[in-house]
Amino acid sequence: MEKIKVGIVGAGGYGGCGAIEILCRHPHVTIESLMAVHDIGKPISSLYPHLTGFCDLPVLSTEDPAVPDSFDVVFFATPDGVGQQQAARWLDNGAKIIDYSGDFRFDSAEIYRGYAERIGRNPEHAAPHLLSRTVYGLTELHREQLPGADLVGNPGCFAVSCILGLAPAAAENLIEFDTIVCDAKSGVSGAGKTPKPTFHYPARYECMNAYKIAGHQHVFEIERELSRLAGKEITITFTPHVVPLSRGILSTIYAQTRQGISIGDLVDAYRSFYAGEAFIRVFEPGTALMSTDVRGSNFCNISVNYDDRTGKMIVVSLIDNLMKGQAGSAVQNMNVLFGLGESEGLGIPGFFP
Amino acid sequence: MEKIKVGIVGAGGYGGCGAIEILCRHPHVTIESLMAVHDIGKPISSLYPHLTGFCDLPVLSTEDPAVPDSFDVVFFATPDGVGQQQAARWLDNGAKIIDYSGDFRFDSAEIYRGYAERIGRNPEHAAPHLLSRTVYGLTELHREQLPGADLVGNPGCFAVSCILGLAPAAAENLIEFDTIVCDAKSGVSGAGKTPKPTFHYPARYECMNAYKIAGHQHVFEIERELSRLAGKEITITFTPHVVPLSRGILSTIYAQTRQGISIGDLVDAYRSFYAGEAFIRVFEPGTALMSTDVRGSNFCNISVNYDDRTGKMIVVSLIDNLMKGQAGSAVQNMNVLFGLGESEGLGIPGFFP
Amino acid sequence: MEKIKVGIVGAGGYGGCGAIEILCRHPHVTIESLMAVHDIGKPISSLYPHLTGFCDLPVLSTEDPAVPDSFDVVFFATPDGVGQQQAARWLDNGAKIIDYSGDFRFDSAEIYRGYAERIGRNPEHAAPHLLSRTVYGLTELHREQLPGADLVGNPGCFAVSCILGLAPAAAENLIEFDTIVCDAKSGVSGAGKTPKPTFHYPARYECMNAYKIAGHQHVFEIERELSRLAGKEITITFTPHVVPLSRGILSTIYAQTRQGISIGDLVDAYRSFYAGEAFIRVFEPGTALMSTDVRGSNFCNISVNYDDRTGKMIVVSLIDNLMKGQAGSAVQNMNVLFGLGESEGLGIPGFFP
Amino acid sequence: MEKIKVGIVGAGGYGGCGAIEILCRHPHVTIESLMAVHDIGKPISSLYPHLTGFCDLPVLSTEDPAVPDSFDVVFFATPDGVGQQQAARWLDNGAKIIDYSGDFRFDSAEIYRGYAERIGRNPEHAAPHLLSRTVYGLTELHREQLPGADLVGNPGCFAVSCILGLAPAAAENLIEFDTIVCDAKSGVSGAGKTPKPTFHYPARYECMNAYKIAGHQHVFEIERELSRLAGKEITITFTPHVVPLSRGILSTIYAQTRQGISIGDLVDAYRSFYAGEAFIRVFEPGTALMSTDVRGSNFCNISVNYDDRTGKMIVVSLIDNLMKGQAGSAVQNMNVLFGLGESEGLGIPGFFP
Repeated sequence: MEKIKVGIVGAGGYGGCGAIEILCRHPHVTIESLMAVHDIGKPISSLYPHLTGFCDLPVLSTEDPAVPDSFDVVFFATPDGVGQQQAARWLDNGAKIIDYSGDFRFDSAEIYRGYAERIGRNPEHAAPHLLSRTVYGLTELHREQLPGADLVGNPGCFAVSCILGLAPAAAENLIEFDTIVCDAKSGVSGAGKTPKPTFHYPARYECMNAYKIAGHQHVFEIERELSRLAGKEITITFTPHVVPLSRGILSTIYAQTRQGISIGDLVDAYRSFYAGEAFIRVFEPGTALMSTDVRGSNFCNISVNYDDRTGKMIVVSLIDNLMKGQAGSAVQNMNVLFGLGESEGLGIPGFFP
Repeated sequence: MEKIKVGIVGAGGYGGCGAIEILCRHPHVTIESLMAVHDIGKPISSLYPHLTGFCDLPVLSTEDPAVPDSFDVVFFATPDGVGQQQAARWLDNGAKIIDYSGDFRFDSAEIYRGYAERIGRNPEHAAPHLLSRTVYGLTELHREQLPGADLVGNPGCFAVSCILGLAPAAAENLIEFDTIVCDAKSGVSGAGKTPKPTFHYPARYECMNAYKIAGHQHVFEIERELSRLAGKEITITFTPHVVPLSRGILSTIYAQTRQGISIGDLVDAYRSFYAGEAFIRVFEPGTALMSTDVRGSNFCNISVNYDDRTGKMIVVSLIDNLMKGQAGSAVQNMNVLFGLGESEGLGIPGFFP
Repeated sequence: MEKIKVGIVGAGGYGGCGAIEILCRHPHVTIESLMAVHDIGKPISSLYPHLTGFCDLPVLSTEDPAVPDSFDVVFFATPDGVGQQQAARWLDNGAKIIDYSGDFRFDSAEIYRGYAERIGRNPEHAAPHLLSRTVYGLTELHREQLPGADLVGNPGCFAVSCILGLAPAAAENLIEFDTIVCDAKSGVSGAGKTPKPTFHYPARYECMNAYKIAGHQHVFEIERELSRLAGKEITITFTPHVVPLSRGILSTIYAQTRQGISIGDLVDAYRSFYAGEAFIRVFEPGTALMSTDVRGSNFCNISVNYDDRTGKMIVVSLIDNLMKGQAGSAVQNMNVLFGLGESEGLGIPGFFP
Repeated sequence: MEKIKVGIVGAGGYGGCGAIEILCRHPHVTIESLMAVHDIGKPISSLYPHLTGFCDLPVLSTEDPAVPDSFDVVFFATPDGVGQQQAARWLDNGAKIIDYSGDFRFDSAEIYRGYAERIGRNPEHAAPHLLSRTVYGLTELHREQLPGADLVGNPGCFAVSCILGLAPAAAENLIEFDTIVCDAKSGVSGAGKTPKPTFHYPARYECMNAYKIAGHQHVFEIERELSRLAGKEITITFTPHVVPLSRGILSTIYAQTRQGISIGDLVDAYRSFYAGEAFIRVFEPGTALMSTDVRGSNFCNISVNYDDRTGKMIVVSLIDNLMKGQAGSAVQNMNVLFGLGESEGLGIPGFFP
């Protein structure tokens, strides 16, 4: 089998590094080019010395003549705004595009506008004509749309955690939809590689905080997916937090259960909804799930619990934000796009401790 | 002014250490005896070398003849079950008692029974006749009952954070009481000094988890206090989490606001409820509150926020679990019991970073 | 090719877990039995949930009838004293043994006695007749002795770091041998899985300390190997430290260079000594080596530096204590014992951040 | 007693914050002005919210008309180059100056030149005429020169740790001076408040590294002080490391003892040299000293050990780099300059855990 030729834009960030780590051990892939805007000319292994001997490709400018005009797939491991400007270049030459940002998570310019305004970006999408062919890359929910597609909007890390934690309840109509609260705790790596005062080690090591209260951009895609599953408009309350660890998102999700729904119903629904999924593990109510259980791997661990004093469902949903929340999902999507086994390159447990 | 003579039972734990740290700089106190069940005979500064030169008293058994029969006040920095067995010994000789555990947080044997059953302890209180004279030691809410009292049940750390975060909303009837969700994140020191597998450094450093979902014992005192303030029975959903830091509790508290209540109403209510409080700081909606802002100090920092898409109030409440959540509150209560300035010994900002 | 049948004794500890993580992705291995003294009957993935789906074998007592009488290789991921008692059982049935402890690092009962006395253990080895057939499993230095051998004493983690950091200088006679100082900093995982007061998260997160000053047991094997390479008796000063991280050993090694030796000589010697080694990377003087560069991988990163004001060589040697310092070396030895590629199962970069 | 009027230049950094924390509880001081180049106009408590209510002074430009022309003392909590430019302004009006940087640690322009060249700064001191009146502010060694002085060069953090760890051995001629190795491990706060890639939380949390091998600028003042004590020129090898904690320096110091010197001699010398010192604690050989023992306090904890196999002295010296290593020493110097008790404002144990 010929190897899939991969280009990575934004290779210098954590999202690029994560993709390289996975693709280095992927049997059907060859990384052709690494592109970024900083550190041009340096081997990627000088930025990430642990990659020494695994990937020593130089970081190129996207304008570098050495960058090929065609790839089989290009990962845009880039922030909002980059993919929409540059994806067409390779898309038009037959490449499939997997974009990490919000650029291709919405399938109309109008919906994008709402999202972009929320986050204070230019509301006019640079490639609105592409939006109708996008697939939202939460593989478990959009697997059937991926074969044949060529433009994937990889989901936001918080969104992965919250959507997977709520999808069965939404699809099976088990909860009161106007009571959903998602309280998400993320490690610092979710904020990326650029040093900032609140992520400076001495300022962060004993520090946790809530941020963007009632205002985080991932809420849009969460609501869109839940509404789609439920067949009705859902609005949620979502609060992200940063806690002093590097990797992991733990979302604690609350919703009033519908009259007559028992914990058994909830667990059955989750087990059956995720039956056969390679990367979703549903645990018994009360199981102690630790974020380290998914660190370095592409799994989402879920427990469904019930507060019989208040009738609330309490779901705990755990991912590694850089794996299932980012590069892992991207590779999982790539595998489906190319008809490969969904776990190729992803069949690793991480390490402990 | 004669110095207040203090005894500390449970001096070897974090709660005892915290009391010693504060009392060492308290101008009106002298520590007379340190008592514990482990490390008998060792100077406390061999257990906690940072105390060297500040407090080098030996750790005594409570049965040691050197332990006086009377103190002005005895801190029981002990787990559930100790204070109820031993408090009477000094109480009967005129000492005031401040107990850290759940032993004296409930004013009837019946209510205690419910609590004890919940946590799997002997439901029969060992000193039921004392319960009617207890004062619940959340100073801000029970300040008037303290002068003249001699038996204080110091509040649970999670309870301090959640009650202070909800008290104004409960008292002013601003929220729908059956929609309250408290999502609390605690540092590891809240679990005490005894090593356990999940608090072993390599197992914990990148690890966060929810625990006792729908089953933590502090929910009782939270509900009791809120119900008292609201004048009606309140049941809440409460989920504690452990995150990899040492000190701090951040509680994110959600409730549907009552029809017609605005963010302005909420903020006004909180500001006015806590006007004049030495240790409560109410911040503007959206203020970035970090747990380090209260580390090492007795403050509770609160922001009140509003999700206008769902009508939910979102309160962030921050304390240092070992200070306002434990030893700090204990000393604050002592100050009121003895008619001292409420901030004596507590007027420190902690340190950063 | 038939798969190598592996048994692991001490599977419940970090050293067992590390071996399982590696062997799960090893193409030529099948794990047959996991044995331990705790958690008997539980699936290993209940102890280490990240292994769920990768290895769910139950933990067996070594006495369990389900444990086969023969393996191709048995890993003793056990502390001192276990392997010497139990290795013969499978060794006599044809298995090769790789022992993590000090039990088989010395090839005579006499030398073992000195070691055992130093660490306060029974000085009489339980299987002295086996000692003459042991191979010291620092692969880079004993590769030729491994094929055909059946009893490997896997090196101590500090020893790996220090010996690899000094071997070229010792072999090439570049330094004054009586001036060697090894100052080693280790993550907490090196102390194993059992919770202890000084490794309790709140006690450790801001805590570093030296320990066993002038008395750590690994000094024996370091001196033995250096003396062998130098052809003369070498005694060193070695100080281990614990710093608040999980994985990694950084050894800073000092020695007076011999008259006339330049930094160029040193670098040449190190490069040439390690030419062709898969897991040793020698970097330029002054290169900033971070412990994260080797985290989760089997590499040893080394820089050789020179203080021209004092004539001292300063070597920085970095490993992951649980990989090259333990399970990684064990698998590397296994690969050589069985004639496999030395990197099989070990060809991974770890992850960052 | 009239309060001492203090100005702080560089108030926005960790060194300024540390001084404010201490001076807030100092009974004889009033902070008059906080000056910096960033965050002008903001209350210091918006930068450091834990100071809310303790110090809410605005940050002023040094050029602000509100800045008085005279203070009793000005702390320059600033990097190299600032104090030498600006100190004269207040010095000439009668203020005493305590400068944290290397600007006033050397008493001649010539020696400063060597230092400045080493660290790549302008070798021409901006105020060379002031250098002869400077006092090196390691209080324990220069206490007699402080009364009457008006210009103090506060010592470097690594220097405090290493000089205090070696001073008795140097003064009493106990070691071979050409064999000294100082291996120092520092928390990240020593690098200051400005975010940098290697101090970004995700990059640092599991990361330790050596840096400036054979090239750190603090080596100059260490050698100068040791040489002064020994009465002969001493050159040392010094390697700084960064480990993932916030506060603390642990220096492990090695030197060959002189013929005939026993561990008893060493301990006696250290005890007697530091007899009566308020902030130096000398512990028994083998005592487990943890960096947390001095966290948040002004103490230097020292143990003297001996390797009888090699004849080397091994000293462990521990400080909090932001206290005894910086702001604590500055206040200690201020106390002596003004004839106050040396411990005023500094009599606190820090907190644990």
